[in-house]
Amino acid sequence: MAPDVPDLVDRARQGQPRAVARLISLVEGASPQLRDVMAALAPHSGHAYVVGLTGPPGVGKSTSTSALVTAYRKRGKRVGVLAVDPSSPFSGGALLGDRIRMGEHASDPGVYIRSMATRGHLGGLSWAAPQAVRVLDAAGCDVVLVETVGVGQSEVDIASQADTSVVLLAPGAGDGIQAAKAGILEIGDVFVVNKADRDGADATVRELNHMLGLGEAREPGDWRPSIVKTVAARAEGVDEVVEALEKHHAWMAEHGVLDRRRSGRAAREVEAIAVTALRERIGDLREDRRLGALGERIAAGTLDPYTAADQLVAELTGQG
Amino acid sequence: MAPDVPDLVDRARQGQPRAVARLISLVEGASPQLRDVMAALAPHSGHAYVVGLTGPPGVGKSTSTSALVTAYRKRGKRVGVLAVDPSSPFSGGALLGDRIRMGEHASDPGVYIRSMATRGHLGGLSWAAPQAVRVLDAAGCDVVLVETVGVGQSEVDIASQADTSVVLLAPGAGDGIQAAKAGILEIGDVFVVNKADRDGADATVRELNHMLGLGEAREPGDWRPSIVKTVAARAEGVDEVVEALEKHHAWMAEHGVLDRRRSGRAAREVEAIAVTALRERIGDLREDRRLGALGERIAAGTLDPYTAADQLVAELTGQG
Repeated sequence: MAPDVPDLVDRARQGQPRAVARLISLVEGASPQLRDVMAALAPHSGHAYVVGLTGPPGVGKSTSTSALVTAYRKRGKRVGVLAVDPSSPFSGGALLGDRIRMGEHASDPGVYIRSMATRGHLGGLSWAAPQAVRVLDAAGCDVVLVETVGVGQSEVDIASQADTSVVLLAPGAGDGIQAAKAGILEIGDVFVVNKADRDGADATVRELNHMLGLGEAREPGDWRPSIVKTVAARAEGVDEVVEALEKHHAWMAEHGVLDRRRSGRAAREVEAIAVTALRERIGDLREDRRLGALGERIAAGTLDPYTAADQLVAELTGQG
Repeated sequence: MAPDVPDLVDRARQGQPRAVARLISLVEGASPQLRDVMAALAPHSGHAYVVGLTGPPGVGKSTSTSALVTAYRKRGKRVGVLAVDPSSPFSGGALLGDRIRMGEHASDPGVYIRSMATRGHLGGLSWAAPQAVRVLDAAGCDVVLVETVGVGQSEVDIASQADTSVVLLAPGAGDGIQAAKAGILEIGDVFVVNKADRDGADATVRELNHMLGLGEAREPGDWRPSIVKTVAARAEGVDEVVEALEKHHAWMAEHGVLDRRRSGRAAREVEAIAVTALRERIGDLREDRRLGALGERIAAGTLDPYTAADQLVAELTGQG
């Protein structure tokens, strides 16, 4: 049965977890109602502060996310968590893992936790994650934490679509930082050295300071990335992370960066949807005789592939 | 200076190697003259028999290619060789290697040898290789051998775009066949077990026979893949490979498969060019205010991303 989208959105906005879950499923499944969902959500989004958390495996991302949820809940904030595991073909698997780690929040009505496994999805991560964030936003979350597993380009993309990007590292993680150089150092607004009770935490902070060029002069008004040491499993340093996030949020608001990031994020989302729509139009042609007919003419030497592509694009776009 | 495309095509058709090389460079570099080149070549292509050679590393692909060149030259055929090494960022490197291995043909005016390193190229291998084949075709090659390095999806794509696909294996290559299962068994029209003077050649042939289900009944008119043993370095079995190729060519012509493969190949080429053209139109918008303006409205909650994408597609396609 097709869902009653306006009713779902109403119930999600009233804070009903099942309605939120259903909406995210509609988004994730690229259901035919996706357009209706997005249209219904649009007037209610733009409120949440979106924080991306990324870093190498084993650094304690889920533990840190869970500790941040606790810290924000103490401050009376409603929190959404979106855990994106692109490598898992089974969202159930990721969901179970997160449920266990986030178990303490499972019965808290002010917390929504959702895992997504989006590899192979139409348009990839860039497609579904921002829209799930939009659902959590419209459902009244003050903060949405987007946790990505791994350090691949997709994870960087997700994290860079947040208002604030948190990069997590662990001590003795010379390797971790090296891996992280592959792009996540550039996107970090706040750096967290977790497991800071282990040897080498200060060395890692120094190394980060050096790699980020924090000793160097900056333009006035430039954001100077924060580095915070935590032991997330004991909630140590987590308040300092929240403070660093609030400082970054305030700095962004003051310098017009928040609006710019959000507009840019929305623009990329539109671009991804538009590219997919155009690709689908072309894909439809495979079933069609037109593409085959062009192929036959090229094979016969009476048409060249560029002219054929021009004709195809013109037909697709109604300019033919 | 912009090249005189009709003049280049004329000179290539007269068999001038430098003109052929220049045209392939224009194709490979996705030069602004690409469209002109393709339009000028179209009436002169469709003559060459295109043979793809693929297989795991170390199987003797270049040696086999070189031996096939010799065999075809003995038969008075003009031969083009396109060696595609997608993993090499330096086409010069690949070129040098092939030049050495193909050294005996370097002074033969009836042979064109060209290496391409196309990773990261606009649209990837599917873009440049078929067009380089078209150049060699128009330049009067009777046979074009497309040798791909590695067994990745791109190599399979290239090989499957040939008229006939040759899959090379070596004895004791249980591993090789396993690797090959990743897709190249399905595309092979002719299988060559090279280095057949080594132990295990017959076992590899038996294994191939089994994996290909050659003992099973087939529909009348179905192609039964050939398996040929060679020692390419001593030119042993190479005439049998040519015979197998000729047999496959005749079978394709008789059953209408040749036309169908060529039309299908051309259709995929058109599709790739059209997708790239549409993507470029969208990419152009990044420089433009329109995409940014849509992003701002979405961030403000006054527009949803799907409606925005619809507007964008409509503007792009002149339906707005």
